[in-house]
Amino acid sequence: MASSESLVFLPLGGAGEIGMNLNLYGYGPPEKRQWIMVDLGVMFGDERTPGVDVIMPDPEFIFEQRENLLGLILTHAHEDHMGAVPYLWPELRCPIFATPFTSALLQAKVSEFDEIDGLPITEIPLKGHLKLGPFDIEFITLTHSIPEPNALAIRTPAGTLLHTGDWKIDPDPLIGQQTDSEQLTKIGDEGVLAIVCDSTNVFTPGRAGSEGDVRDNLMEVIQELKGRVVVTAFASNVARLQTIAQVAEKTDRHVALVGRSMFRMVGAARSAGYLDNIPPFIDAADAGYLPPDKVLYLCTGSQGEPRAALSRIASGTHPHVVLEEGDTVLFSSRVIPGNEKSIFALQNSLVELGVQVMTEKDHAIHVSGHPCRDELTQMYQWVKPQIAVPVHGELRHLVEHEALAQSLQVPETVVAPNGSMVEFSDGKARIVEEVPSGKLHLDGSVILDSMGPTLKERRQISFAGYVHITCAINKKGNLLAEPRVHFRGIPDSEEGDLAYEVGEITEEVILGNRMNRRGDLSLEERVRRAVRQYISGQTGKKPVTVVDVIQV
Amino acid sequence: MASSESLVFLPLGGAGEIGMNLNLYGYGPPEKRQWIMVDLGVMFGDERTPGVDVIMPDPEFIFEQRENLLGLILTHAHEDHMGAVPYLWPELRCPIFATPFTSALLQAKVSEFDEIDGLPITEIPLKGHLKLGPFDIEFITLTHSIPEPNALAIRTPAGTLLHTGDWKIDPDPLIGQQTDSEQLTKIGDEGVLAIVCDSTNVFTPGRAGSEGDVRDNLMEVIQELKGRVVVTAFASNVARLQTIAQVAEKTDRHVALVGRSMFRMVGAARSAGYLDNIPPFIDAADAGYLPPDKVLYLCTGSQGEPRAALSRIASGTHPHVVLEEGDTVLFSSRVIPGNEKSIFALQNSLVELGVQVMTEKDHAIHVSGHPCRDELTQMYQWVKPQIAVPVHGELRHLVEHEALAQSLQVPETVVAPNGSMVEFSDGKARIVEEVPSGKLHLDGSVILDSMGPTLKERRQISFAGYVHITCAINKKGNLLAEPRVHFRGIPDSEEGDLAYEVGEITEEVILGNRMNRRGDLSLEERVRRAVRQYISGQTGKKPVTVVDVIQV
Repeated sequence: MASSESLVFLPLGGAGEIGMNLNLYGYGPPEKRQWIMVDLGVMFGDERTPGVDVIMPDPEFIFEQRENLLGLILTHAHEDHMGAVPYLWPELRCPIFATPFTSALLQAKVSEFDEIDGLPITEIPLKGHLKLGPFDIEFITLTHSIPEPNALAIRTPAGTLLHTGDWKIDPDPLIGQQTDSEQLTKIGDEGVLAIVCDSTNVFTPGRAGSEGDVRDNLMEVIQELKGRVVVTAFASNVARLQTIAQVAEKTDRHVALVGRSMFRMVGAARSAGYLDNIPPFIDAADAGYLPPDKVLYLCTGSQGEPRAALSRIASGTHPHVVLEEGDTVLFSSRVIPGNEKSIFALQNSLVELGVQVMTEKDHAIHVSGHPCRDELTQMYQWVKPQIAVPVHGELRHLVEHEALAQSLQVPETVVAPNGSMVEFSDGKARIVEEVPSGKLHLDGSVILDSMGPTLKERRQISFAGYVHITCAINKKGNLLAEPRVHFRGIPDSEEGDLAYEVGEITEEVILGNRMNRRGDLSLEERVRRAVRQYISGQTGKKPVTVVDVIQV
Repeated sequence: MASSESLVFLPLGGAGEIGMNLNLYGYGPPEKRQWIMVDLGVMFGDERTPGVDVIMPDPEFIFEQRENLLGLILTHAHEDHMGAVPYLWPELRCPIFATPFTSALLQAKVSEFDEIDGLPITEIPLKGHLKLGPFDIEFITLTHSIPEPNALAIRTPAGTLLHTGDWKIDPDPLIGQQTDSEQLTKIGDEGVLAIVCDSTNVFTPGRAGSEGDVRDNLMEVIQELKGRVVVTAFASNVARLQTIAQVAEKTDRHVALVGRSMFRMVGAARSAGYLDNIPPFIDAADAGYLPPDKVLYLCTGSQGEPRAALSRIASGTHPHVVLEEGDTVLFSSRVIPGNEKSIFALQNSLVELGVQVMTEKDHAIHVSGHPCRDELTQMYQWVKPQIAVPVHGELRHLVEHEALAQSLQVPETVVAPNGSMVEFSDGKARIVEEVPSGKLHLDGSVILDSMGPTLKERRQISFAGYVHITCAINKKGNLLAEPRVHFRGIPDSEEGDLAYEVGEITEEVILGNRMNRRGDLSLEERVRRAVRQYISGQTGKKPVTVVDVIQV
């Protein structure tokens, strides 16, 4: 293969952190490559990004050549794989390809955005094919924690790539078919140039476990319970929702959905033909009239999100669901790193109500959706790739995954963090270019570059507080009124002693009674320094300080 | 026992959260009770308390009757048991009692505080006795993750209480003696009215494991390593430091300490007679000249603390320690909940340097210092208490511990969160009073009540940003200059379009060109509302907005 017709892989999200996946595959001469995009996801903000709910990969690289972008293919419907579509698709305006459930969920999601008047989504059937320019793409059914997870076998003139997306090997997934090992083996026998593979659980030995086992364990636990039962689970785990509905039926309980995303997910699942084998749900408002042992609430909020249903139930502010001693809440979910404190606080609130709390730690009522080491090993045995490219992980996961692939005798491995363009050539992989990559923050309705000053300014104030001083002086430099001192987030006595002293210092500086150690500083800067130094001496903190001296 | 001479237990910290322990025991008629305080610890701030490093229990209840406080007894030297002494002892000024290592460490710590000119510490020998008013207190040697952990057998006219402090059952603690099961059994045979017991690991089955096992595993791992070895561990785990020094000696490596708290801890340990059986440490600066396979750095920063040694090493900003491919960092420590993201970020930085990272997840190089369920069971079998009072845990831990005690046929149990005063009477325990309890935040050098406005104001700004508008008008209400608009943490274009528009709106309101929908609002409030509403429409956020209109 001439390098003028090279095949490249370029992650812009998901290779270096877990979340916000954006993968590009390109083929053709560098100056006129054609591209496909696989997934376009988000991650969620945390304490480092106060006020930011959603973080997205910066698509600038592909935005600048969007005329060469043949389409966006979604492997599955999790937020970290398609959540950025409503925000970034308007800039790209490319065709979108997805299987029915993913398509239904994306359309339900986008319908909440006024700016988008429908998306050009083409539905691809499970195990379907798609041809986009030089890319011949086959959807391969896998198992995961959401319906319709797909690997993509991307056949190109330069060889076949297998993009796994998110997966595990679930022998009893409850919804959908088993991992299509036959097709994976077949593609492996044909010859796979490179696998681009999920690294999430590479540190975990063994296997992730099956939804079938969760069903058995939930049955065993719930049939012993007497009071109200609440199960909180990730709404997108439709197999889990089905399990819970079936367990409720067998234990003679009616299921009420609680939380908006439960309704959205159930709607999308039904429109794609799932969940048709369970009894109808009842209204949470009606469930309150039933005897406690006839009710099961299926509920959002397993991560302790303050506005989600379970937190409102725990704080006694939910309009329809009231829990009391004798009731049980099951967390059929995992603890997403970073959410520990919120989740434990939620569990403490429930315990305070006298409610029994059960989690995956004490009962086997959850399994991961990602492949553990034995499953990764199995995948490599099926596919027998020439090259392994770990994605979907922090750097430590990617490096561990690389070591695992090497231990399985994969001839070539490459760790390519976001922005690293990997060229596949002569059975080798090498990083040929670093392109701009980064994060965008959705701040309210504004999309911010993560390197900009906005969040830094907010964090600064959150650590040290803010002082604003306003003075009016006349042309002679005399104060026309007492300086106004505003404190935010700065400790002061009830009488405002510190603010009063800051006002005094301001007057002194303006009246020239304070030494001006640097003659070339503006009056505002002199006030600012004097005030900041004084507050620092009194409180041990240097607040953000702004001074307005208005001369009239 | 007449209830006029009642015996009470009152936790003000540590019963309802893990961290900042403060336990009070009282004896006598309610109006003139005599008190002892057991431990006075801190916890650390997190994203909910930006800018706050240290959180302490509010000692108001005992402060108001400090003339009846006979003394403060420290069970051991962990920060969550004695870290608040430098901040709160000046208010209490009571005698302090501690074993030699705890005493040495507290004095080293307090020497950094100018305000405190020495503490009235009485050293109690291990297994020593102490009489304070009606309380006859015996120190009982336990095992934990720091030298000299003590339970206190508190004998009173109303019966004997066993306050466990923090403990585990380590058959091979390496430093200090084993858990004094003989004395615990003896006290149990005498009759224990109530045990006040550590709940930290009540959700973990089995046993915590031994420092001896950690030594064997560290030996096995480190002897195979070729390049530089860094071990990060909690500095207070002196047995671990000794282990690491011994492993280094056997693997022909010199140990350099890195990080201030390592030096402080080693100093305190030596002054109390520990660590005298290991080779001398070398300077980190000198270690850089040795071949990589002759060096072992023993390092602070296992929690990803940004200013600690390991983070500085990982970012390449440490003056003496440089790591590269072939080197290994071992985290001989646990992940404290809430620190996951910082620790993983640190590990990713190390991996980026080409450094191998090993943790307790992949190698058995750490054990917990707290009792798991089998150890708790053993303790109850030794002590055979009439009443169990779980402490040192969140509410969910206390409730689970209560259930465990009931399953062990302890006749009486009581969950008493901070501020609940438990009276022991006729072999029963009941909560007789709720007293004020709460948290104090150390914000810079100021101690804040956690219910005050300071942090709330800072958090508000961290989510939504801050706008300040300053205008000067004359008596007719005419603007004397263009309004000044200051944004902090609010997104705007480089040209400042939004700020410009906000200035225009301000002018319109002042000139009366905007409708005043509520005639009774001040001009400042009208400007504030108009500006806030406009910014909200443009950005989706409502910033904290302050308006100064100065009339001159």
